[in-house]
Order: sequence, then C-alpha cells, then structure tokens
Amino acid sequence: MTRLLAILYLITLNCFSQSNLMETYNLMPWPKSIQENNQRFIIDENLTVSIDGKNQKRVQHGVTSFLRRLSNRSGVFINEGFAVPLSNNQQASIQITYKKSAELIIQDDESYQLDINSNKVTLVANTDVGAIRGLETLLQLLTNTNSEYYLPGVSISDAPRFVWRGLMIDVSRHFHPIDVIKRNLDAMASVKMNVFHWHLTDDQGFRIESKTYPKLHELASDRLYYTQEQIKDIVEYASILGIRVIPEFDVPGHATAILTAYPELGSKPGATYKIERYAGVFDPTLDPTKEDVYVFLENLFTEIAPLFPDSYFHIGGDENEGKHWDANEHIQQFKKEHNLATNHDLQTYFNIRLEKILKKLDKKLVGWDEIMTPNMPKTAIIHSWRGEHEGLAKGGTLIEAAKKGYNTILSNGFYIDRMESVVKHYQTEPIGDVQLTEDERNRILGGEVTMWSELVTPLTIDSRIWPRTAAIAERLWSQKDITDVDKMLKRLEVINYRLEEVGITHIRNKGVILRNLSNNQDISGLEILSNVCEPLKIYSRNEGGTEYKTYSPFTLFADACNVDANDALKFKKAVTNYTESPNEAHKSDIITLLEAWSKNHKAFQKIDKSPKIAPLESLSFNLSESAKFLLKLSQKEKLSKNDIKSFKSRIETLKQPFADVELVIVNDMEKLFEALK
Amino acid sequence: MTRLLAILYLITLNCFSQSNLMETYNLMPWPKSIQENNQRFIIDENLTVSIDGKNQKRVQHGVTSFLRRLSNRSGVFINEGFAVPLSNNQQASIQITYKKSAELIIQDDESYQLDINSNKVTLVANTDVGAIRGLETLLQLLTNTNSEYYLPGVSISDAPRFVWRGLMIDVSRHFHPIDVIKRNLDAMASVKMNVFHWHLTDDQGFRIESKTYPKLHELASDRLYYTQEQIKDIVEYASILGIRVIPEFDVPGHATAILTAYPELGSKPGATYKIERYAGVFDPTLDPTKEDVYVFLENLFTEIAPLFPDSYFHIGGDENEGKHWDANEHIQQFKKEHNLATNHDLQTYFNIRLEKILKKLDKKLVGWDEIMTPNMPKTAIIHSWRGEHEGLAKGGTLIEAAKKGYNTILSNGFYIDRMESVVKHYQTEPIGDVQLTEDERNRILGGEVTMWSELVTPLTIDSRIWPRTAAIAERLWSQKDITDVDKMLKRLEVINYRLEEVGITHIRNKGVILRNLSNNQDISGLEILSNVCEPLKIYSRNEGGTEYKTYSPFTLFADACNVDANDALKFKKAVTNYTESPNEAHKSDIITLLEAWSKNHKAFQKIDKSPKIAPLESLSFNLSESAKFLLKLSQKEKLSKNDIKSFKSRIETLKQPFADVELVIVNDMEKLFEALK
Repeated sequence: MTRLLAILYLITLNCFSQSNLMETYNLMPWPKSIQENNQRFIIDENLTVSIDGKNQKRVQHGVTSFLRRLSNRSGVFINEGFAVPLSNNQQASIQITYKKSAELIIQDDESYQLDINSNKVTLVANTDVGAIRGLETLLQLLTNTNSEYYLPGVSISDAPRFVWRGLMIDVSRHFHPIDVIKRNLDAMASVKMNVFHWHLTDDQGFRIESKTYPKLHELASDRLYYTQEQIKDIVEYASILGIRVIPEFDVPGHATAILTAYPELGSKPGATYKIERYAGVFDPTLDPTKEDVYVFLENLFTEIAPLFPDSYFHIGGDENEGKHWDANEHIQQFKKEHNLATNHDLQTYFNIRLEKILKKLDKKLVGWDEIMTPNMPKTAIIHSWRGEHEGLAKGGTLIEAAKKGYNTILSNGFYIDRMESVVKHYQTEPIGDVQLTEDERNRILGGEVTMWSELVTPLTIDSRIWPRTAAIAERLWSQKDITDVDKMLKRLEVINYRLEEVGITHIRNKGVILRNLSNNQDISGLEILSNVCEPLKIYSRNEGGTEYKTYSPFTLFADACNVDANDALKFKKAVTNYTESPNEAHKSDIITLLEAWSKNHKAFQKIDKSPKIAPLESLSFNLSESAKFLLKLSQKEKLSKNDIKSFKSRIETLKQPFADVELVIVNDMEKLFEALK
Repeated sequence: MTRLLAILYLITLNCFSQSNLMETYNLMPWPKSIQENNQRFIIDENLTVSIDGKNQKRVQHGVTSFLRRLSNRSGVFINEGFAVPLSNNQQASIQITYKKSAELIIQDDESYQLDINSNKVTLVANTDVGAIRGLETLLQLLTNTNSEYYLPGVSISDAPRFVWRGLMIDVSRHFHPIDVIKRNLDAMASVKMNVFHWHLTDDQGFRIESKTYPKLHELASDRLYYTQEQIKDIVEYASILGIRVIPEFDVPGHATAILTAYPELGSKPGATYKIERYAGVFDPTLDPTKEDVYVFLENLFTEIAPLFPDSYFHIGGDENEGKHWDANEHIQQFKKEHNLATNHDLQTYFNIRLEKILKKLDKKLVGWDEIMTPNMPKTAIIHSWRGEHEGLAKGGTLIEAAKKGYNTILSNGFYIDRMESVVKHYQTEPIGDVQLTEDERNRILGGEVTMWSELVTPLTIDSRIWPRTAAIAERLWSQKDITDVDKMLKRLEVINYRLEEVGITHIRNKGVILRNLSNNQDISGLEILSNVCEPLKIYSRNEGGTEYKTYSPFTLFADACNVDANDALKFKKAVTNYTESPNEAHKSDIITLLEAWSKNHKAFQKIDKSPKIAPLESLSFNLSESAKFLLKLSQKEKLSKNDIKSFKSRIETLKQPFADVELVIVNDMEKLFEALK
C-alpha cells in the first residue's frame, strides 16, 4: 500500500513538473519527456555545428536553415554559416549524429534525443528526419536575457504518437502558387508534420500539367496550374524537410474540370461543361460504365504517378450524389447487368478498377470514407471525414475502418476551413476511450488537417491554416495525456508569431487588407474592431447575400478577421475571472478593454468611408455605445430604464452578422451585464 | 506680340491645369496628356471587358489581372471574371482594341489612348503592350465616394520618353527566389517599366543551372540557383507583362564563384577559390590569355543564350582592378606580345572576343561603362554607372557614349542600394541641358535602377526597391518637364501602398522584423523610433563594426528602417513651415510629433530588452528627452542654462550612428531650437 502511494505520488509529481515545464518552454508539439539541468548553452559567434551521418542532404539543409534562423532571431553574427567538417582535433559545439537516411515511408523512425549543457549540444537520432525534427525543437528552446541568447540545459527524448501527421491544401477552388506551398511546407516542418496532401483537381480547376492529356491544364485551369517541373521541385523540397507528398485526383465526382476538357468521359450524354465558378457539390461525374474512362485514368495516372515517389495515391471518391448516373439509361442498364443495386455499388465497382490500376503503378489507394463499401479491398486506406456529427457511431468512420481491417487516417474534427476555435480541434482525440486491439490501434495511422479553399486566396490562406494547425500537429505528435487547453493556448501564442520566421504571412497580411479597405488611412479603428470579430463559421459566410464565386473579392473585412479573435479571448477570460471573483484587479482588466471599445467609434469615424467599410458603421457604433454603457455600469453610475432598454436592444442588433462577420464578445457582454447590474 | 503673349498664356494655363490635375489623380508615371470631362464610369457587377486584337495572351492576362485587382480593391462582385467574347449585339463596357503583338524589342510602340465617359471606356493602342500599359493607368485612376467606386471621365494620351526603363536585381550577393522576382515584375509593370536586368553571377554565387558546366551551380551556389525551367518561367512571366529580360554574366572580374567551380580558368596559377562571403571588390579574375576561357564562355553562353530571347546580353566587365593580372608573368608576357599596353587594353581584347562570341549567338553585348575603350565596337551598349561624382564630365559616361556613337543606358543616379532619398533619384535627369544631335539623343535608350544585394534579403529587398523605383520609373517614362518634387511625393504616397496589391512586401515586413526584435511584445515604441531613423547610407553600414557576411543577420533594427523615414519628412516640412511663418497651426504640427517622441521612451522601456534592442536604449532616451526640451521651449517655459547645455549635448550624441541607423531629424531639431529660443 505504501508502495502504491509512492507510485501515485511520483505520477502526481511528474504531472505537476510537466505542467510547470509547460510554463517555461514554449515547445509545440510537446515532447515525450524533458529533464532540466540548470545549465545554459550561450549562442555566440563561435557556435559550430557538425554532422555525423550518411547522405547528408536533409541534415545539411536543416543545419543551414537552423543557422540562418538562429542568427536572424538572435542578431548574433555567427562565423560559420554552414555545418563544419568532422574533425578529430576540434569538436563542434552542436554535434548531430544519426544512423541512416529515412525512406519517407510510414515505418520511418522520427525519434530523437537532445542533450544541452553549458558547452555542448548533442542531437542523436536513428534517421536524418529524426535529426531535423530535433533541430526544430532546439529552435523552439531558444531564449534570452537582456544581454544574451541561450539554449536552456535540458535533455529531451521525443517520438511521435502517430506516423501520419498531415495537412491537405485544396489548390483547385483557389489556386495557390509554389511559394504558398513552400512556406506552408516550412511551417509544417517547424511543428513536425510529415504529410502534405495535395488536392490537385476538383470542379473548379485541374491544377497539374498533363502531357498525355494537355487539354486538362489548357482548358480547365484558367492557366493556373503546376508544371511537372514545379511538382518535382515541391516533392524534392518536401522530401528535404522529411515530408511525404500525396497527390489527390478526385474522381468520379468533383469532375467538372476534367469534363470541361474531356466531356465525352461524363455521365450526361452530349453535355458540355464549363469550369465551375461557385462552391458546392455539383453533378458532373465520370461515367464508370465507359471503358474509355479507365483508359483515360490509367494513362493519366501512369503519367503522373512517377512524379510522386510516395506509395499512397488519393483518388477522392467523395460526395458523388449520382444524379447524372440516375438520369442515364445506359448506366442504369449497366448496373442491372452487373448486379450493382445502388450507386454506391457502382462506385465501388469503379473504385476497385482504380485500385487495380494503381496497384500496377505500385500505389496504394487512399479515398475519402465513402469508398468504404463491403467489396472494397483492405489494401485501400480510408480517409475518415465523417463522424458523430454526421450521424455515425462514436469514433465515426475512423474506428469503423480500423475495426474492419483498413488502415485509416482522420480528418473529421480537423476541418479548419469551418473557421472554428483551435480549442475544438485540439480536443479532437482520434481514439478516445474506444477499446481497440493492438492491430486495430496500429491501423490508425494518424490524421490530416484539411484546408478546403472556397474562401481563401494566397493572401489569406496562411491565416486560415495557422496557428490552429500547430495545435493539431501537437494532437497527432504528442502523448494522449497532453490536453491542457490553457497551457496549449499560452504556448501557441509564441509558436504563432514564430511562424513568421519561416515566411507565414498570417499576421502581416491583416494590415494589407485593412490598408486596402481604408485606402491607406489610419487603420487603428479597424484593427480594434477586427480583434473582436470573427468570420462567419461553418460555411455560413455567403448565406442570403451575394454568392461567392472563385473570383469574388476576398479582401473584405471578414478576410482580415480570424478565428479565436485576440481581444475576444482576453475579454472572455476577464469576464469569467470577474464573475468568479469580482475583485478590482479583475475589474480593471475588463475596463481596459471596454475603454478601448468605447473610444473606438471615434477612430472609425475618422476614416473616409468607402463602400467596403460603410456596412461596418452600425457594428462600430453599437459596440462603442454598449461598451460605454457597461463602463458606466461598472463605475456604479445610475442608469435609467431607457439606458438599459437601449443596451439590450443594441446587444440584439450586435448578435446579427454584419458584413460576413460576427461580433464574438456579445455573450460575454451580456454575462458581464448580469454580473454588474 | 499679342500672339506670343497668347501662346505664353496657353503654356502657363496648361502648366497650371497640369499641376491641378496632379492634385486630383495619383498617376505614376504621369501621362503625356490628360483632359477631363466631368463624367463618371461607375464600377458595378455588370462591368465587362472585351478585347479586339490578335494574339491575345498578354491582354487576356492583363484583363484577368485587372478584374481581380478591381474587384479586390472595390469589393464589387463583378459577374464576369474574364474578358467577354466580342459580340455584334452587346458591347462590353470596357473595350480594348490594339493592332498587333509587340515583339519585345526597343522599337516597340507602348503608346495608348484612353477615353472614359459615363457608360463606356475605350482603350486603343498599337500593340498589346500599349494596351496593358493603359490598363495600369485605369487602375491608378480608380477612386470612390462613400457609396461607389468609379473611374473619372478623362481622355489620356500617353507614350514613354525613353524606350529602356529597367530594374536590375543582383541575385548573387543574396539569392532571391522566383516569387521575389515575380512580385517585383508585377510591380514594375504597374509603373510601366519594361526591362528586368538579372545580375546572375558574381563573387558570392553563380545562380543559374548549367548543364554544360554543372559544377557552376553545384559548387558555387550553396544550392541557391534557378533551374533552367525556372528561368524560362520567369522570362515567359515577364513577357506577358511586356517586360524584356536581360541576363548578366559578370566577367572577367567578379569571378570568384566561377573560379570556385573551375579554378583553372583563373589568373592566379595553381590557386583554388571559395565562394566569397563578404561584400567588396575582389581579385579573382578570369585569365584572358587562355583559350580555354573563351571555349568555356562560348559553350556556356551557347547553352544559356537561348533561354533569353532578348537580343541584348550583359557581360558586366566592371571593377576589375587587375591585381592577379599584374602578378602573373604569363599574362604580362601576353600583353607585350599583343601590344596591349595596359590592363584596360587587355580587357578590351577580352571584350572584343566576347562580342564576337555573342554575335554568333545573335546577341548584342552590353557592359558597364569600363568597357568603353577606344577599340570597342560600336555595336556594344554602354551601361553608364559612373558620372560627375566619379570625377567625369557633365553627363558622365552616358553623354560621352552617345557622342562616341554607342547606344547607352543610365544607372548613375539610380543606385537605390545607396539608401538615399527618392528626391535625389527623381532629380536625376539623364540628358539635362546637354546639346545633342538627334542621333545622339536617340542613342540614349533610357536607364536602369540598380538593386545591388549586399545588404538585402528576400525579407527586406522590396522595401529597398520600392517605392523609390516608382519615381525613377516616372523619370524615364514621363516628359522631361514633369519635375515637381512635392507633387511627386504626394502621388508616391498612394502608389506606395498600392504596391501591396501586387504582392510587394515593403510595408508589411516592417512589422515582421519589429515583432522578431521584440519577441512579439507591443511594437509601438519601436515603430515610432523606426519612423525617424534611416539605415546608414552609401555603404557605410558596416564601417568599424562587425563586417557583414552574406549569412549575417539582416533582421536588425536597421533592416526595419527605411529611406525617407515618414515622420522625419513630416517634421522637416513642419519645421520649414514654422520657420517661414511661425503661426499656431504650424506650431501645432510640430507639437504633435514632439509629444509622440517625448512619450515614446516609456513605451520603449516597457519592452523586455534583448541583445538586439538594448543598443537602441540611449537613442530612444535621448530622443525623448530632446523632444521634451523642445516641447517646453515651444510652450515658452523658462529653461536653465544647464537644460540648454544638456540638450545640445544630447543632440551631439544623436548625431552619431546607433546600431547602423541614423536619427534623421537631428538637424531639424537644431533648426527648431534656433527658431524657438
């Protein structure tokens, strides 16, 4: 019994110290284990890095990039800008050792061991990818006093929980050029993600050059596509960062672009098609009864597959509502002849034929979870996007797939384009308390963040991906018990601005949009407003108003706003604190914010209005007036019934969306009113 | 006599109205002629654009880009996102007509005629390039009321003064990836520039893939180079914007990178070379006496030349001090044998051989003005970089070259890397009052802005190129009499922030550097400081201190500061106004600024210091104290002798550089002191 108590004590101590460490180190994803030794490794001009390992391409690149970032962050003029050769006489101050080069397969070992003391840093890994993961941890550890930058003395052992930690970017609905992809790959590597899923085709565009079927990029891309050389460049760039690249060719639905180029492959006889300009689920679908369709896909995949060395190949397979199939007599006839009762059966027939084509090309088929039909071979990988919210059992299709014997990855809960809080995504635990056998557990490879691009352009996409994706990266890398939301948010604040270092534009581009909105006038009035507004969530942005097309303006106020609006989070915390213990300190936090809002309409009014800003006038005015009212109330001023009535009416107005944003502090304003009155 | 008076009157009237028009329209470069008609063309969702002309690639691209920018700027959801087909029944609201596709040669016609009235816009040009120049003018005309965006009714006839309006970017001293080049090409097109001069090789790196001599990019680029596919992509991208691309391979000096790969081509027997990490003029030089050198250059140019369709090819030829030639006996012997008295003669021998190689490849040789030696064939183009400041006659080598019969372009006066005021560059008139024959005048093709990259990285390069280059673009496009500095500065303010629209990062990246400096604390204290500081000018940045290497940090306070510091310009104007007429209004402009500075040290002190910020402490403190003193003085407070003494001593301190910046308001502070005391 004493022994049990001692164990419990140790566990508690460990949790407690872990928790303390999270206050000190802004690491994300949080490592498996970390021990402190109270030493400091000072960054000065004599710092050197050596590499001991074969095939040094990845680690050389990692070290060069490490040295540039270290120098740019610390301002230290480091003498040696590249790794130094191994030498018997002189030891480098940072020594990297690894055994072999990773193959970029799901069996790769990404673990590493890091030891920092006052005169030496050692980084040991089994693979080069493990080594570069460790370099990212080193950079996250960097800290400073007034007079110097240093790495704190720690020992870290680290390894990922899941082998598949991905980000999908949809480049069809809006095209995203090479530089957008590269900077996002850099950001992924900075939080140890390892799969880039490239959604290359959809109704709104076919984004890759085909030499076999050139009409695809010529007629169905508006000249916005990647050349094959660019694809190779990205695959190589990702490989150096230890990131696998999985292409997706979405078939048989989401096929408007393909059919714009080759209408004869469609399910609607005699139809012609045009690149889709709207967002939604559309009817154009490949005809699975035509042999030409398989010839086309086999030729296309045979051409494209070698560009992507990864053994997985995503064929989409989602959201086919089968309207054109139902309307086509020949297809109905085919179903009867082949004993295919439903459209689902027909799609399985199609998928199985695809699976065979891909097998010849040495590729494993990945598809969205609609492909999980009874006859689907177990070699397929099920990409789970539907879950409990879609009316499925606990764990959704992820757990179902694992139990049925499929390898599977999770995106349900990681749909960042829904513009929901990071907290929700962070709390999406893939397995939870579901009981699984070891085999079943091992079939759950990991997950992918999905960035569907209906409402994002190269100007805004970074702000929609980051920083929330960093928290999901932690969910997929770190141990299951790393779940403290407040500590995550505190670390995320640091990780967030550090993303600027690798080129992510999420913070800087807000000013670009606000300057454009205001014709370069003083934007402070708009900035304060944007810090309490969030873009409408879950695809409600264009409800009732003008429907967005791919070429609609995405430089509106809503595009400058972001999820988890800064000042809204601060206000929520302040109001919660105050209602829990209504002391002066907590009140003062509230008053600071209320004062800023109460003054803000004056700043807003100073801006010469344009048609883009005018719709915000009422929002700005009502916010200021409500804040004034709450200020008076907090200062115990006597307020008339009419004041209260007009406050309540303003609050009702403020609950409505304005210009595709919602004011996310309204509920807390009401809560504060109740607490103060 | 009456007639002469009438003419004078008309001229005056024209100047006056021209001057008034500059208050209304923020056009840059200013067009040749502009007439108003008081109508308005409203931008609404029904706007359409048609194109009547052959080979529509350029204009189609121009129209698509025009529609995106129009929509993003106005917020209008334009129904048709692309040019509409010509139709007999329905006329588009914006009609573009041109005769032929430009060949991208110096004889191309870039003129256009623009007519805007309330229901129609017509844009007529001889070439497609003229048409896209006109589209940029249209976008610059866009303006708005509270309720709508519109194009004002005007007729504009426009054509350039010079046929060669270039920007050179040095990608050797710091590499600048494809996206940096593309956004700068877009920005160039937005101010009607038409030549991109790509300085591809220098001591610090060989930046282009060579299949014939792969060691060049493999050993002499740190893996930072353009593939040939990327070069083709850029050349095509530029062509669509009506921009010619001229490559530069700098020989026989500036050759350290080439010799790192192929030391046997050097002038120092048995030497080996390493990529240069510092800035400066270095000794490694090709050996012009070796036949192998010409074989190498002929093979290399034969491989590279076809990537660049332009008929001009730049061979550098500058800054060869000939030290390795002097030290080499074999070279001395060769000079004697070939009757080459000086190293200049030897270099001419080299240049003439190059000229012949290039002729075979159908290329005209361009070189920096050192190549202008007596025997140099008149087919060469002289790139003038030395002028009166370098001890030459009025007009420098530009006028000399034109008089000697060479075609010539000007860069003297356009060295923007010297970090001097836009005013100086704007006032660089290429021809001035020098008398030239028509032939001589025609041989002056235009000029080029030069962005040498010793001190710029992809993070900062845009802020060093823009907005000053827009003013130089006007110097080269607009008529000679467009010289009003105040009106240029007023228009430049608008053009400056509009550059964000095409992706230029000069404004947004300042915050990135300041957030990095402050570890993401409130940067307002640093921002105010950065608006009165400028980076040290004319290559003095690293004097006395740590010498910058290519991989030194360029994320320091100096990198966040820029030429023509905003608040310094405001202060200068305010002080000038006040000393000229010391009234309360003028005083109040001064006081606003002084108050901000006097308070700023408090904001600065709130930032937790890092080694990067600490050196600014004294600057910040002395600025605040001096501002406080001047405030008191302006409020007629009694000040002691000691106060005055310590103010004067502070001013002396503030005259010194701090952390590679200078406080550029010191002289105006002194001037104000004299006016107030």
